[in-house]
Amino acid sequence: MVAFCDIIEERAVKAAQTFGTPDAKYYTDYKELLKDDSIDIVHVCTPNRSHSFITIDALESGKHVMCEKPMAKTYAEAKAMYEAAVRTGKKLSIGYQNRQTPHCLYVKGCCDNGELGDIYYAKAISIRRRAVPTWGVFLNEEEQGGGPLIDIATHSLDMVLWMMNNYEPKMVVGNTFKKLGNQTNTANAWGDWDPEKFTVEDSAFGYIVMKNGAVITVESSWALNIADTNDANFVLCGDKAGADTLNDQVRINYVKNGRQVIERPDLGVGGVAFYEGKKSSPKDIEAQKWLDAIENDTDPCVKPEQALTVTRILEAIYTSAKTGKPVFFDDND
Amino acid sequence: MVAFCDIIEERAVKAAQTFGTPDAKYYTDYKELLKDDSIDIVHVCTPNRSHSFITIDALESGKHVMCEKPMAKTYAEAKAMYEAAVRTGKKLSIGYQNRQTPHCLYVKGCCDNGELGDIYYAKAISIRRRAVPTWGVFLNEEEQGGGPLIDIATHSLDMVLWMMNNYEPKMVVGNTFKKLGNQTNTANAWGDWDPEKFTVEDSAFGYIVMKNGAVITVESSWALNIADTNDANFVLCGDKAGADTLNDQVRINYVKNGRQVIERPDLGVGGVAFYEGKKSSPKDIEAQKWLDAIENDTDPCVKPEQALTVTRILEAIYTSAKTGKPVFFDDND
Amino acid sequence: MVAFCDIIEERAVKAAQTFGTPDAKYYTDYKELLKDDSIDIVHVCTPNRSHSFITIDALESGKHVMCEKPMAKTYAEAKAMYEAAVRTGKKLSIGYQNRQTPHCLYVKGCCDNGELGDIYYAKAISIRRRAVPTWGVFLNEEEQGGGPLIDIATHSLDMVLWMMNNYEPKMVVGNTFKKLGNQTNTANAWGDWDPEKFTVEDSAFGYIVMKNGAVITVESSWALNIADTNDANFVLCGDKAGADTLNDQVRINYVKNGRQVIERPDLGVGGVAFYEGKKSSPKDIEAQKWLDAIENDTDPCVKPEQALTVTRILEAIYTSAKTGKPVFFDDND
Amino acid sequence: MVAFCDIIEERAVKAAQTFGTPDAKYYTDYKELLKDDSIDIVHVCTPNRSHSFITIDALESGKHVMCEKPMAKTYAEAKAMYEAAVRTGKKLSIGYQNRQTPHCLYVKGCCDNGELGDIYYAKAISIRRRAVPTWGVFLNEEEQGGGPLIDIATHSLDMVLWMMNNYEPKMVVGNTFKKLGNQTNTANAWGDWDPEKFTVEDSAFGYIVMKNGAVITVESSWALNIADTNDANFVLCGDKAGADTLNDQVRINYVKNGRQVIERPDLGVGGVAFYEGKKSSPKDIEAQKWLDAIENDTDPCVKPEQALTVTRILEAIYTSAKTGKPVFFDDND
Amino acid sequence: MVAFCDIIEERAVKAAQTFGTPDAKYYTDYKELLKDDSIDIVHVCTPNRSHSFITIDALESGKHVMCEKPMAKTYAEAKAMYEAAVRTGKKLSIGYQNRQTPHCLYVKGCCDNGELGDIYYAKAISIRRRAVPTWGVFLNEEEQGGGPLIDIATHSLDMVLWMMNNYEPKMVVGNTFKKLGNQTNTANAWGDWDPEKFTVEDSAFGYIVMKNGAVITVESSWALNIADTNDANFVLCGDKAGADTLNDQVRINYVKNGRQVIERPDLGVGGVAFYEGKKSSPKDIEAQKWLDAIENDTDPCVKPEQALTVTRILEAIYTSAKTGKPVFFDDND
Amino acid sequence: MVAFCDIIEERAVKAAQTFGTPDAKYYTDYKELLKDDSIDIVHVCTPNRSHSFITIDALESGKHVMCEKPMAKTYAEAKAMYEAAVRTGKKLSIGYQNRQTPHCLYVKGCCDNGELGDIYYAKAISIRRRAVPTWGVFLNEEEQGGGPLIDIATHSLDMVLWMMNNYEPKMVVGNTFKKLGNQTNTANAWGDWDPEKFTVEDSAFGYIVMKNGAVITVESSWALNIADTNDANFVLCGDKAGADTLNDQVRINYVKNGRQVIERPDLGVGGVAFYEGKKSSPKDIEAQKWLDAIENDTDPCVKPEQALTVTRILEAIYTSAKTGKPVFFDDND
Repeated sequence: MVAFCDIIEERAVKAAQTFGTPDAKYYTDYKELLKDDSIDIVHVCTPNRSHSFITIDALESGKHVMCEKPMAKTYAEAKAMYEAAVRTGKKLSIGYQNRQTPHCLYVKGCCDNGELGDIYYAKAISIRRRAVPTWGVFLNEEEQGGGPLIDIATHSLDMVLWMMNNYEPKMVVGNTFKKLGNQTNTANAWGDWDPEKFTVEDSAFGYIVMKNGAVITVESSWALNIADTNDANFVLCGDKAGADTLNDQVRINYVKNGRQVIERPDLGVGGVAFYEGKKSSPKDIEAQKWLDAIENDTDPCVKPEQALTVTRILEAIYTSAKTGKPVFFDDND
Repeated sequence: MVAFCDIIEERAVKAAQTFGTPDAKYYTDYKELLKDDSIDIVHVCTPNRSHSFITIDALESGKHVMCEKPMAKTYAEAKAMYEAAVRTGKKLSIGYQNRQTPHCLYVKGCCDNGELGDIYYAKAISIRRRAVPTWGVFLNEEEQGGGPLIDIATHSLDMVLWMMNNYEPKMVVGNTFKKLGNQTNTANAWGDWDPEKFTVEDSAFGYIVMKNGAVITVESSWALNIADTNDANFVLCGDKAGADTLNDQVRINYVKNGRQVIERPDLGVGGVAFYEGKKSSPKDIEAQKWLDAIENDTDPCVKPEQALTVTRILEAIYTSAKTGKPVFFDDND
Repeated sequence: MVAFCDIIEERAVKAAQTFGTPDAKYYTDYKELLKDDSIDIVHVCTPNRSHSFITIDALESGKHVMCEKPMAKTYAEAKAMYEAAVRTGKKLSIGYQNRQTPHCLYVKGCCDNGELGDIYYAKAISIRRRAVPTWGVFLNEEEQGGGPLIDIATHSLDMVLWMMNNYEPKMVVGNTFKKLGNQTNTANAWGDWDPEKFTVEDSAFGYIVMKNGAVITVESSWALNIADTNDANFVLCGDKAGADTLNDQVRINYVKNGRQVIERPDLGVGGVAFYEGKKSSPKDIEAQKWLDAIENDTDPCVKPEQALTVTRILEAIYTSAKTGKPVFFDDND
Repeated sequence: MVAFCDIIEERAVKAAQTFGTPDAKYYTDYKELLKDDSIDIVHVCTPNRSHSFITIDALESGKHVMCEKPMAKTYAEAKAMYEAAVRTGKKLSIGYQNRQTPHCLYVKGCCDNGELGDIYYAKAISIRRRAVPTWGVFLNEEEQGGGPLIDIATHSLDMVLWMMNNYEPKMVVGNTFKKLGNQTNTANAWGDWDPEKFTVEDSAFGYIVMKNGAVITVESSWALNIADTNDANFVLCGDKAGADTLNDQVRINYVKNGRQVIERPDLGVGGVAFYEGKKSSPKDIEAQKWLDAIENDTDPCVKPEQALTVTRILEAIYTSAKTGKPVFFDDND
Repeated sequence: MVAFCDIIEERAVKAAQTFGTPDAKYYTDYKELLKDDSIDIVHVCTPNRSHSFITIDALESGKHVMCEKPMAKTYAEAKAMYEAAVRTGKKLSIGYQNRQTPHCLYVKGCCDNGELGDIYYAKAISIRRRAVPTWGVFLNEEEQGGGPLIDIATHSLDMVLWMMNNYEPKMVVGNTFKKLGNQTNTANAWGDWDPEKFTVEDSAFGYIVMKNGAVITVESSWALNIADTNDANFVLCGDKAGADTLNDQVRINYVKNGRQVIERPDLGVGGVAFYEGKKSSPKDIEAQKWLDAIENDTDPCVKPEQALTVTRILEAIYTSAKTGKPVFFDDND
Repeated sequence: MVAFCDIIEERAVKAAQTFGTPDAKYYTDYKELLKDDSIDIVHVCTPNRSHSFITIDALESGKHVMCEKPMAKTYAEAKAMYEAAVRTGKKLSIGYQNRQTPHCLYVKGCCDNGELGDIYYAKAISIRRRAVPTWGVFLNEEEQGGGPLIDIATHSLDMVLWMMNNYEPKMVVGNTFKKLGNQTNTANAWGDWDPEKFTVEDSAFGYIVMKNGAVITVESSWALNIADTNDANFVLCGDKAGADTLNDQVRINYVKNGRQVIERPDLGVGGVAFYEGKKSSPKDIEAQKWLDAIENDTDPCVKPEQALTVTRILEAIYTSAKTGKPVFFDDND
């Protein structure tokens, strides 16, 4: 990587030293960086508020863009990003790296082979008991646009839609809560939060009906009084088989020879350490696939229109939570 | 018990011999039985279709009535039952005996003590992988009014409402599926079903918003490709603590001394066998509490207006599933 | 069952009373029983020594015969039984009821579907730590023809050949031991044995090469200093997948989506008790299939030529143990 | 260590820098190294093909030699090595360092105390599900002389013979397979192999009868469809007790006070880290014992005639696999 | 059994019918029973208060006596019983049937073989969390002489002394508590107790120093707020090995081959059911050994002087609890 | 830290380099160090023998002192330390850092809230199977004053007294043993000990009665033949609830809603690593609280009079072990 930008100069310098090539440059104004013609690809890792305008400027400058999840704070912003990519012909992808975990890749293989059949019920689960991110701007509604729903449910919902290969929602209802954010004896994994600055929801739930009749439920929380937690997981029920990633393992369930069967892949390969040159962290696999897509001019793994649908549904949950009414989707939007 | 009625005489005779006093009578027409003035209490255990008219006739005949769950096929029928009880001044209760399990009683104690605080998210779970009841009339829509939703979700939803002590729904959405009922290699616990006669749903899901903002989700199935199953269970999330009965055990979770804590009661008391005179099966406890209520002229454990709300919500899930729209509740109904 | 025979009259009477129809007859001379024309089917449950001549007499009398395992003490006797069946046109089967366990039936389904591919290595395991059958004539070489090899390895070897559907052995080596039979502090499950009367081997091991190159190992013991025991189990290694029944469960292992996978069927169906009319013990299933075969004039599940091969291989292990040399099979035998 | 030799200079240099004394020398021709009179001991770690001639040259040059396992590709080569050691009076040992694991040392203590009595049945187990060594020359028949049998079964067989202290084989049969080496979706721990270069067996099995009647079975594989794997383990059945090292733990089983007993040593000593100066890895213990043997002019732990017998038996398994016949051992060889 | 006595006639009749021979007699005055010369042996199962005088009368009448544990309420009473047995030459034993459990018998075998060496520290543990015997007279100080110390610690202390074969106490201190006996939400295994009638201690603890320096601690409770419970168990620490029966299993621990080892016997023998004529419940074994002792005129398993020492120590714990001082033993008592 | 002292100069230098500020000084005579007026606080980490006089000298020099546990070899020495602190007005604390583990802090919270009620029975457990500290002077009676009792039981007893907040002992009995210290096949975690130099006890046991009637037992050993070990743990039984830290987890047990309940806190917080600036090791927390106490002039967490009582009781156990009599405490001492 050859250039870094941060509005705080010190952080830009440090990033350049840590991750950059020896002659890496640094900027405090991203517009200066975009002027550098030697740069082909930009990676946007800012708070959600600025995903949209930086991405659009970068695309307009002729760069390919990988933007961190979620795509944007609002559907409108995200749609503008998508349209900029179409308009400029540059590639745009969103950093849903959880798709590249061994768990996800295994289940995706089963889905793509048709082993699950028609998936008609699914759960997108991002539930923590007490793990509120107290650093950065995560608790700040203005910067982020929301709490656990936009921050972690975005992962599990993206995985579920990808598994189902179904991006056509029909109706959404949802509710958000801020119940524990004001409490003080928090037992939080990352230290006590400041109730004053906790301006987003602490939990959010949604119920999605797809055009083909399938149902997806969304559970997300940073802090909930619940015994079972799962950070970015899902359950899929198809008419041939089911799959889930609960408790950090994959189970495929079906019926064979008149018996209920569970199939479990072994996802930890101890011996990998001995094998030179293998890249296996989800982040590395994501990066490799992204570079391959640019090099070969193929679709990136996460297509922008997929991420756009995720953002559209999450926004609908927030809207339904405010209005107390369902959101029906109009294809003309 | 002194009298039994079944439209098939042979079954009435057998029941009288098995459960009755030595001089127990039997009938094939329930109206004859109701004429017997020596009978104070009637227990209605027929298919759902006839719960309503038998119960109303019995109440009108001056009997107290315990009717099996669900209260009735429809809200209208159930409401007529409730009104008959009010009109006649006779006691009416519905057989939700799962309230009397050690699990339920323990959690109910915690809820009534205020240990959970305000419960704002709950799950009513009645999910089986392959356990379709293939005997009797369970698969027959005409007789029963529905499948797993009306048959087993009725238990878990009753438990959740009782725990929350909240009987005021605002909005319901729901969906039903019949996906596995046509398959033949069933691995069913009670033998293969006949797809021809399987006229009810095999799975149903719902999302309920209460007037106070709380959310309840309902999952019910007799046959679903899913690894984790729980027949009549629930999860409760309050702002002080949470509780669940998953996997046949109770966990109460909360934060104390800056730590996440799980509290587990020991619900199996091996030694009970040595203790004479103790009644401890849920069925026995239910019966005892019912007789106590009649004797002391107090409210039965399951009040008819509670069961009425359960039936009202389940009907709304069926309605939403058909219309694709939410059902909003009008207090004037 | 309508007639019973035992050389000890008292036992014949008792069996008739316990298992027979009200008018069941009893005999002390099996030849008398065979004269009864109302009898169609004979079940031979005597010590191994008399399997052969009783079965042949019964076939010659026009009866179908189910003979307990093993088919006979020697290959020559067993071959005569087989030839009598061919000659008389009557059905003959051998009581390998372990084929009908849920474990076996599940794996057999996988084998028959080709899921395991070509099975080239297998283990037939019948190993007990201390479970010598001290009742009856099990320890008597004259009556039984051998110890654990002929008594329990006969089951596991039959299962393995059936799974592989391979009845063509090429070479066998084997060894037998009597090492613990003389000891006295036995910790035996069925009480101490009498070393004087223990005239058979206590352990036997064999190595079988089939005509197609596949290898089968045989381990059998009633008493061995070994921590892991498995009474009638097997391991199968095919070029597509593997299977085993160790520790009373079935595991199917294979590679899918680049991962090692284990598939486990749920073989215990608790709910079966509720399902009227279902027969599910291996003994019952065996009996039902046997009666079906006679009624429909089809092959019995255990064909006599299959059992003949089992006995031929076991005899070869005994022979090799005595000579210290391999036994090669000649197709003209 | 003061000198290093590798036919690739770069590797010799690197080894000298990594493991050598500051003034360590390096060579690309081992004959040059052997001319260095300041060197007393040579450690041969080359592919199996060159074990023999390098070792013999080194012994002839007056060096003591520790050669990596297996001793050599063939019995003839290994015998020449043994004879060179006898002729020169120099010490020769083979690197079976698995003898020095806590597991092995514990069981060896029991064997040497006579606690197991006469060991008459044993299993040498080196079975992997998918762990083919894809680096180096492991898959190359010319360089290595074979696959898992010569590479990993050599360890487990050495351990078994050492435990039994029995080096007198009478007869061997065996079979080798190459069934999975041509497959491509390998899920291999060290990355996919190249089927073109996979010229050795992937599995091998053997059955060994010793002069005293004891039986040893050998199972070895780098890739087999089997659920239970054990890399270098064994099972021993004696007439007083049994022992095994399956699943990385030691179990000693016997009968005491009329009960079956399992004895388990605690082989993981967490606290060892606090204890200065203690050497405890098998490699370190092996090195220390080897140096002690040279210093005190005593037998090395692994005597060359022991390793010679291991190689003789493995060669016999390969021979039997090719001929389809047993190999009988002649003491005059 | 040929005669039964109970001060309540109905119970005597019922016992005679249940356990007696067809012509069994019954009495309400035990002195009448003692006049029956056809009776050789008397079994005393009354409350502790009357153990002493009935036993002495029975011995004086020429009967052998098996008296239930504890021997008596006080050391003085127990000593009189012992002296009566000596004087009359009749056999006397006390019903410590827990000595005959598989656990106890296994450990006793190890102790008698010297495997544990010199036992210098032991724990006698009879601790329940909530299992107060609410039937009979267990809570009545007058009838029983005490609570859990005299009722259940008597078993564990008897086992410990028997294992150590050490009946020479030097000093005892102890304390008793009645802390939970007044509470009402008891969660007791056998139903709530009546605090009014709970006149004995609910917990008692003691510390015993033997003449040879060994230390024994005693923990006993019917109701204690403690997570680990063990009804009649012990821990023994010898200078060669240790043993315990905690959690219903036996562990023998020692050092061998430089490693800490745990030895576990398999005490559950499933197969026993198949073995005719085997008596294996502790009660049956106790009865058989007692009859054998009378028939062969040998010492009973539980010698009266052993039980006498148990009672002497328990009385000393009660005394120390009252005085707040240690009790030193004088051999002249 | 600005200055270091060790009688061996090399070690003082090394400590200064490792833990000190860049300009840290070092001394070999602690009296020189005490003359340095820039030093406010001294930490005494010498063998037990010199705790007393160094601490007193330091206090007299006007320093605050943190002295490692135990306070001193004898009660008299410890009392002199306490009096010096009172006299000089300087703060003195003892390094019982185990009070600061998550386990201890959680239970202390429960005790201080009154959740356990009146604690009347407690166990202080410091039992190792084979973990004798073979480095330093631990085995030297002259330097340390004793073995496991003064070395590790000092921790568990301190924790128990702190939990009970009860520092008023009434009577103590105790015994010490040296049974395994002479053995040689030790399997010790830190290597074999030298029996010649092992001059302290290897195990010690005590029984303590407090003025309010509560009983505390003490078990301590470095080497004991026992299967369950716990290094610095305790069990507390109160009349409202119980608590223990066995097996490295906290369990709180009580009765609620008519059931026995276990409450388990989650004491491992994986996420802490992400949270900057948090100090969480017991050592760090101890240091922070000590500095806070000095800065704010409040009581240190471990008050010297608390540690004094621990030393007083341990000395009494040693005394009772020697005399064979109890030690009664006189408030005038």
